[in-house]
Amino acid sequence: MKFQKILIANRGEIAVRIIRACRELGITTVAVFSEADREALHVKLADEAYCIGPTLAKDSYLNFTNIMSIATLTECDAIHPGYGFLSENADFAEICESCNITFIGPSSEAISKMGDKAVAKLTMQQADVPVIPGSDGLISDLDEALVIARNIGYPVIIKATAGGGGKGIRIAENEEALISQITTAQQEAEKAFGNAGVYLEKYLTGMKHVEIQILADKHGNAVHLFERDCSIQRRRQKLIEEAPCPVLTPQLRDRMGQAAVRAAQAVQYSGAGTLEFLLGPDNNFYFMEMNTRIQVEHPVTEMITNVDLIKEMIMIAEGNPLPFAQSDISINGWSIECRINAEDSERNFMPSAGLVPFYLPPGGIGVRVDSAVYPGYYVSPHYDSMIAKLIVWGNTREEAIARMKRALEEFAIEGIKTTIPFHLKLLNHPKFIDGDFDIKFLEDHDLSN
Amino acid sequence: MKFQKILIANRGEIAVRIIRACRELGITTVAVFSEADREALHVKLADEAYCIGPTLAKDSYLNFTNIMSIATLTECDAIHPGYGFLSENADFAEICESCNITFIGPSSEAISKMGDKAVAKLTMQQADVPVIPGSDGLISDLDEALVIARNIGYPVIIKATAGGGGKGIRIAENEEALISQITTAQQEAEKAFGNAGVYLEKYLTGMKHVEIQILADKHGNAVHLFERDCSIQRRRQKLIEEAPCPVLTPQLRDRMGQAAVRAAQAVQYSGAGTLEFLLGPDNNFYFMEMNTRIQVEHPVTEMITNVDLIKEMIMIAEGNPLPFAQSDISINGWSIECRINAEDSERNFMPSAGLVPFYLPPGGIGVRVDSAVYPGYYVSPHYDSMIAKLIVWGNTREEAIARMKRALEEFAIEGIKTTIPFHLKLLNHPKFIDGDFDIKFLEDHDLSN
Repeated sequence: MKFQKILIANRGEIAVRIIRACRELGITTVAVFSEADREALHVKLADEAYCIGPTLAKDSYLNFTNIMSIATLTECDAIHPGYGFLSENADFAEICESCNITFIGPSSEAISKMGDKAVAKLTMQQADVPVIPGSDGLISDLDEALVIARNIGYPVIIKATAGGGGKGIRIAENEEALISQITTAQQEAEKAFGNAGVYLEKYLTGMKHVEIQILADKHGNAVHLFERDCSIQRRRQKLIEEAPCPVLTPQLRDRMGQAAVRAAQAVQYSGAGTLEFLLGPDNNFYFMEMNTRIQVEHPVTEMITNVDLIKEMIMIAEGNPLPFAQSDISINGWSIECRINAEDSERNFMPSAGLVPFYLPPGGIGVRVDSAVYPGYYVSPHYDSMIAKLIVWGNTREEAIARMKRALEEFAIEGIKTTIPFHLKLLNHPKFIDGDFDIKFLEDHDLSN
Repeated sequence: MKFQKILIANRGEIAVRIIRACRELGITTVAVFSEADREALHVKLADEAYCIGPTLAKDSYLNFTNIMSIATLTECDAIHPGYGFLSENADFAEICESCNITFIGPSSEAISKMGDKAVAKLTMQQADVPVIPGSDGLISDLDEALVIARNIGYPVIIKATAGGGGKGIRIAENEEALISQITTAQQEAEKAFGNAGVYLEKYLTGMKHVEIQILADKHGNAVHLFERDCSIQRRRQKLIEEAPCPVLTPQLRDRMGQAAVRAAQAVQYSGAGTLEFLLGPDNNFYFMEMNTRIQVEHPVTEMITNVDLIKEMIMIAEGNPLPFAQSDISINGWSIECRINAEDSERNFMPSAGLVPFYLPPGGIGVRVDSAVYPGYYVSPHYDSMIAKLIVWGNTREEAIARMKRALEEFAIEGIKTTIPFHLKLLNHPKFIDGDFDIKFLEDHDLSN
């Protein structure tokens, strides 16, 4: 089938991104918005827009009933959930399925499997995807935890099975710490995610966060679109991403790509997804989690492969087979993305909401801006602080870095503080320039002042 | 040598374009500006900026003395002239040479040769580049003109040898018209260009404007970077350009590219240059003129070749050999540029200067904006009406057209009229969509209302 109309169950830059893809495909768009987002750019750009509730996300962007009502009333063929909000909510995907509205993403079963970290890990082991040494599934009690920790060696990491994105994680350096933390971790997980299940893993050091983008259709075809290096993180939140990864050999890229495709096929995946791996200094890599949705950092992959991932997601959801085979996809040049957050990076990344009276994004060769900000826009304190993604392309990593610096210097956002000064410092850091960084880089190197 | 500091002898988007390239190369920039341009974006973005005179271009952007004074005082190594203004002024290039400041462009000799249309034509014939049938050089008197016109057949075109860019041209449909126009044409040429020389050419129909971008270094190496189709013109002013050309076969592309390289080598050309050809429905092509400078539409070539032409110009001027051979350059995808002019395309393209209180360029995948406008900018009536170039890239021409339409629809420029509505009409025209258009398209199809 060909979709005539798509509801975009999201806000901000990703809603704008999806509207753009729909327009280019000739598909009518329906935006939804909270009361705080009445003047948002996605509302202005969509063909139709409807208020779905009060400011708090739980009352609007997470409000199943209102979103499904709008989708039904406006006769939408499909819903694109973007990232965050309902994008990895298996119940929502199931409701869409039952209402005969296509959820643009994988099946609710695939979301469920990958959303439960312990199930996901087991599934990956069965698909011959390397996983981090640790417990086989959930920890039943402290004694079991102590045995496993002795086997794999300290430090160990305690993870909530329903967690993700850096949430629900604790590290135990030794037996004493493990004893004191395991019960607390279970209680916290129960409180935060409604699921007390936790599991144990070896805590690895010197690791890079390297993730593989995959695309899979509903006919069993799956390809990978190479990797992204997202090691530059602050409190497990990515700040800068690039593709390709500066340290990957072609052989390792191949191995990781093939593992990612196996992983996707193991859950009959369809749509765009990302396999997140930890890559060690010894070139061993370990499955961390699968994001069963489009990711914030997807543009760097688009820049080096010339594949429009959002369009592909839509066409896959329509039932089309993938238009390319693995051998048709190659890496061209280098791409970097800086997340521009409304945060004061010189004052501990304190949120900085407010009016933006003047706004002028950078332009010219090799520069892409994905944002929902405009001059006179009010950045709300109620949602994610990321207000723009600045993405550059260069023939080489060196050119991409030089281009990113000039684009950051050009970017004019007045009235609020942003992470632009932080990015400029990072891009001038000799270790970043050398590609010599792991996920602990920002803990080890304080760039905040 | 490596340039430390470059003066940009221009304004508007091309000055910004050159500043961007310099920043990425680590070169300090010196902007110059007229009194009207005190608040211009190129002034804000450059490392240094100096006023060089009153509003009128002849007193500022064409003011040799003031520009050379600033270049000398600020110890610039080189001057980039952009397009228009002094970019094809052989005297200015010569003064730069004599002051030991590198003119970023070809030698004054090459500019002179190509600037004199009759000399250029002769040079091209000698280099085995096809030229339009016509007089061998200038017409001495009416009798000679009549003989030549009888030989090549009517209609004929009378061209001022010092003209260019559509200026100094008259068409004679028959002998009577030729008799009545030849003297007037000479008088007008004398008045407009200080040179009464005119020549005759066969007036060809059904022609496309297809031009070839070349790059040549100071060591005798030259390559072409394929073609641009610039047939969509209004009163000989280009409005939309694309690369590649929808009707070129690989064989013809090769022949035209090789002719362009021969042309460049015939005048010991160095830098970036463009060979403009007329391409007939029979696949014969004819030299029109060579632009010995960067052109407005250069970005479409950058988008399909991933070559940064401004950076290459600078590196060639530094004395570097070309970093690639012909076989290293290939075409990737499709690119289209729309010139956004401050003109009311629904009222005969009447200029529409004034304050732009709100400005938001389009963004996202495959979109590039080269502009010097910002929110609150005042578009001056004193200079060229082009205020932005919207350039898109797509995997196919179809994708590029769809992307351009969504980008044009997104582009918010308030307070003045622009050519955006015109471009949207054009992109929806079945003949444009089919690639079925020649340089008379806008004469034959009125899209202005």
